[in-house]
Amino acid sequence: MKNALGREIPEYIEGIGKLEPFEGAWAKLSKGWMDEPTIPAPNKATLPHQSKLCDSLQEAIEKANPKNGMTITFHHHLRDGDIILVMAMNILHDMGIRDITLAASSLNDCHDPILPFIQDKTITKIWSSGIRGKLGRAISRGAMDLPVIIHSHGGRVRAIHTGRIQPDIAIIAASAADCEGNATGSHGKSAFGSIGYAVIDARYAKHVIVVTDNLVPYPCIPLSITQNFIDTVVVVDSIGDTSKIASGTTRITNSPMDLRIAKLAADAIEYSGYFEQGFSFQVGAGGASLAVAKFIREKMKKQQIKGSFMLGGVTSYCVDMLEEGLFETIFDVQSFDAAVSKSLFNNRRHIEIPAALYANPFNCGCMTNKLDIVVLGALEVDVDFNVNVITGSEGNIRGASGGHSDTASGANLTVVVCPSFRGRIPIIKNSVHTIVTPGESVHVIVTERGICVNPLYKHLEENFRKAGLKVVDIHDLKKEVDGITGISRKLKFTDKIVGLVEYRDGTIIDVIYELEEK
Amino acid sequence: MKNALGREIPEYIEGIGKLEPFEGAWAKLSKGWMDEPTIPAPNKATLPHQSKLCDSLQEAIEKANPKNGMTITFHHHLRDGDIILVMAMNILHDMGIRDITLAASSLNDCHDPILPFIQDKTITKIWSSGIRGKLGRAISRGAMDLPVIIHSHGGRVRAIHTGRIQPDIAIIAASAADCEGNATGSHGKSAFGSIGYAVIDARYAKHVIVVTDNLVPYPCIPLSITQNFIDTVVVVDSIGDTSKIASGTTRITNSPMDLRIAKLAADAIEYSGYFEQGFSFQVGAGGASLAVAKFIREKMKKQQIKGSFMLGGVTSYCVDMLEEGLFETIFDVQSFDAAVSKSLFNNRRHIEIPAALYANPFNCGCMTNKLDIVVLGALEVDVDFNVNVITGSEGNIRGASGGHSDTASGANLTVVVCPSFRGRIPIIKNSVHTIVTPGESVHVIVTERGICVNPLYKHLEENFRKAGLKVVDIHDLKKEVDGITGISRKLKFTDKIVGLVEYRDGTIIDVIYELEEK
Repeated sequence: MKNALGREIPEYIEGIGKLEPFEGAWAKLSKGWMDEPTIPAPNKATLPHQSKLCDSLQEAIEKANPKNGMTITFHHHLRDGDIILVMAMNILHDMGIRDITLAASSLNDCHDPILPFIQDKTITKIWSSGIRGKLGRAISRGAMDLPVIIHSHGGRVRAIHTGRIQPDIAIIAASAADCEGNATGSHGKSAFGSIGYAVIDARYAKHVIVVTDNLVPYPCIPLSITQNFIDTVVVVDSIGDTSKIASGTTRITNSPMDLRIAKLAADAIEYSGYFEQGFSFQVGAGGASLAVAKFIREKMKKQQIKGSFMLGGVTSYCVDMLEEGLFETIFDVQSFDAAVSKSLFNNRRHIEIPAALYANPFNCGCMTNKLDIVVLGALEVDVDFNVNVITGSEGNIRGASGGHSDTASGANLTVVVCPSFRGRIPIIKNSVHTIVTPGESVHVIVTERGICVNPLYKHLEENFRKAGLKVVDIHDLKKEVDGITGISRKLKFTDKIVGLVEYRDGTIIDVIYELEEK
Repeated sequence: MKNALGREIPEYIEGIGKLEPFEGAWAKLSKGWMDEPTIPAPNKATLPHQSKLCDSLQEAIEKANPKNGMTITFHHHLRDGDIILVMAMNILHDMGIRDITLAASSLNDCHDPILPFIQDKTITKIWSSGIRGKLGRAISRGAMDLPVIIHSHGGRVRAIHTGRIQPDIAIIAASAADCEGNATGSHGKSAFGSIGYAVIDARYAKHVIVVTDNLVPYPCIPLSITQNFIDTVVVVDSIGDTSKIASGTTRITNSPMDLRIAKLAADAIEYSGYFEQGFSFQVGAGGASLAVAKFIREKMKKQQIKGSFMLGGVTSYCVDMLEEGLFETIFDVQSFDAAVSKSLFNNRRHIEIPAALYANPFNCGCMTNKLDIVVLGALEVDVDFNVNVITGSEGNIRGASGGHSDTASGANLTVVVCPSFRGRIPIIKNSVHTIVTPGESVHVIVTERGICVNPLYKHLEENFRKAGLKVVDIHDLKKEVDGITGISRKLKFTDKIVGLVEYRDGTIIDVIYELEEK
């Protein structure tokens, strides 16, 4: 069957189940409720004054009664500095547990060491927002029998809420925790900021383990994760390397190309009609996106505009803007920089939020629904404004869906920033290799060569032209770029599906095919 | 059938269902899980930038699609100052909605005006932690066909979690809220402090209405109640009279009798073995209970003892102790005094908690499980240490279960304080009229005539005797008091059951019979 964007979607995949085709960015939401019922949260009971402390992660995992075919979840707030996921998977592998579904909120280069566990069928199914490094390359080349399922951050909450992901064990790394499992990422030697993605795991997993390298006297505050959901607590030497959270992506770029794109994007925002008192704003941590914040900051100061809230992945740059009084509050589901933790801990207007509140499409309204302006990056875009943030130009899975489609669907103005080509590979395609965010939820694409306005949002074009900004038709831009780079060679794929890309509402927006070995 | 305390419990009541007899304070918890499954939370969806504001409570209630036979919930943080419950029930009555189940977290004198709605069958079933005033008197005299169900604060969360209470509509009064329904009780002209009881209603009700007299610009922080659970928002002139929250029960008593009891109770605590560095503490707001806090405060200062946390219903007196550094934190599920709001809003160590975290027995461990010492009041106690806090000596329902059995079951030391008689009515009975808290979870009862130690906890008696405290056998005390007061006349009851008292785990610990009209 074909979905609303013309992508061929199988109706059923053995081991995954029935698939529902994407119908449109707001099609399911318009009903006001969800087809799938939610599942009940588990009920547990403990006697007063029982101890939850375990001597080792091994002991905690044994107490969780791991079984073949089970599902285990992790959060990725430590990003490329996480060591707990690999530690836990090693233990499970050594225990001989097989056929595991791994549902990490995202996977990074630091998780490369689990590749052998995919090859030996310790892990046979993966749900994640993103996959990178060797894992992404191997999966793109058919390392798994079942396709991985890529979800958005909001979609992950929905998937757990509806029982598509049913966590048997959740392992939650925390930079501070007490003996009852009250836990946070906001202080301690390994502080990583918000722990917002793990809140849903704690609520729904049959067994929840908190792992910390910093056991503090009861009570550990703030209560980012609360004891009533935590079965056991383990102290380890280290939960990871927080210097690797930022991964060099959270400082303002020096690249003249990125700065040029960012300046144009900021101009577009200024004249969009949405840059006004009380506006809300989200920017990613990538080069051009974050640089947009720099220009917006200057414009806000100059025009004495004060915003309502900044949302999402939070960088030190956002914190600076909060402290300057440019925004009322920050809502933080993930801190892109260990330094952000201090603000999260100390500033009451810098507020930690769970992923459900951030972006779950199926509730009375998540915070992305309240966004005015979001600035997002892209690996590829196409003439229909569809955006690919999951597969690279060489066909590998190497990115993350993250909050991309969540924020795009919610914002009044979704601005995608990207260079028109990278290393002689054009970024503007007739059709992106993999659709993560549907074009109907993208208002403008800004490259160094001008602003492309989605024809669905014509009023913006008029605003930009009046302001003297350079507007280009996306088809003309594509021709111009192709003239410079030449048409890039076509990648070759087999018929095997190695990835399913879920839209936030659970429908399938695209599939990823196996790369033919080079 | 008889329950573990020898009370006769019907197996089934038409309109209520099958009843499970009480088996013991920790019998069900010992299994580590609950027999009843939890129910799924509802799934909803809204489009971005939709408005939730309604012009009136009437409009909001109409949008919630009220039906005959539905369940509506309210929270009672405004205690005797609440006006929203009556306002909403008037609207439903005028709409002709009948056969309503009313599940308010507690009912007070201010709710007397709904009595006609009971008489005309607008309301046919009541769940509540407490019932007072005319309602209590009328129900005790058979005003309803179905018995009311009395639950503890923790038991209410369990009942909603398992679907015994299935809220169709939740109405949540807030002293500040924004257009999306983020709401709090911690600031605004009608600030009432913690909104902890309403959190579970927001999560499970099919339709949730926030009512405020103080609409603030988005976002309303702190996020005590979050927008993702709120369907509509209504602004009214006033949500109630916060001067009536305290009801004169939250200041240190001047009564020599109460002070004498309190001093003895504080001495008992001092020598119990649990009064040590890092201990945790809860006291009620009643005369003698709160006075215990006064003496404990003095002892802590003198002995330089610093406690871990204070829990529960929070008075200004608790706040003073926090500010003096006598405790690390306060966990606040209900503020017994409008003045407490300031501290809750400003002091990061004064932390709002939901009722689930406070006292729900079926999770990985609520905070009452972590209590060292709790001081509780009583309307009656008996020689088996059972406590009645729901029916008065004249047989009327006139009290509240509250957190009584929750905290008693969790604390290492449960101290019940009461005078040995009130107005020539003895308080020590052979058998209390209604058991709310089972004797096995009560360690000591302190009256002005000495300390009675539960024989289950003999070690305490030795500690007290060594310290030279006056210990009396409860049977001797009973005789002594009966000698002063004479045996009080027996009340007369019919065979009709007008109330069921649930223990926190959902089993029935006692039933209340209809009073014969005098």
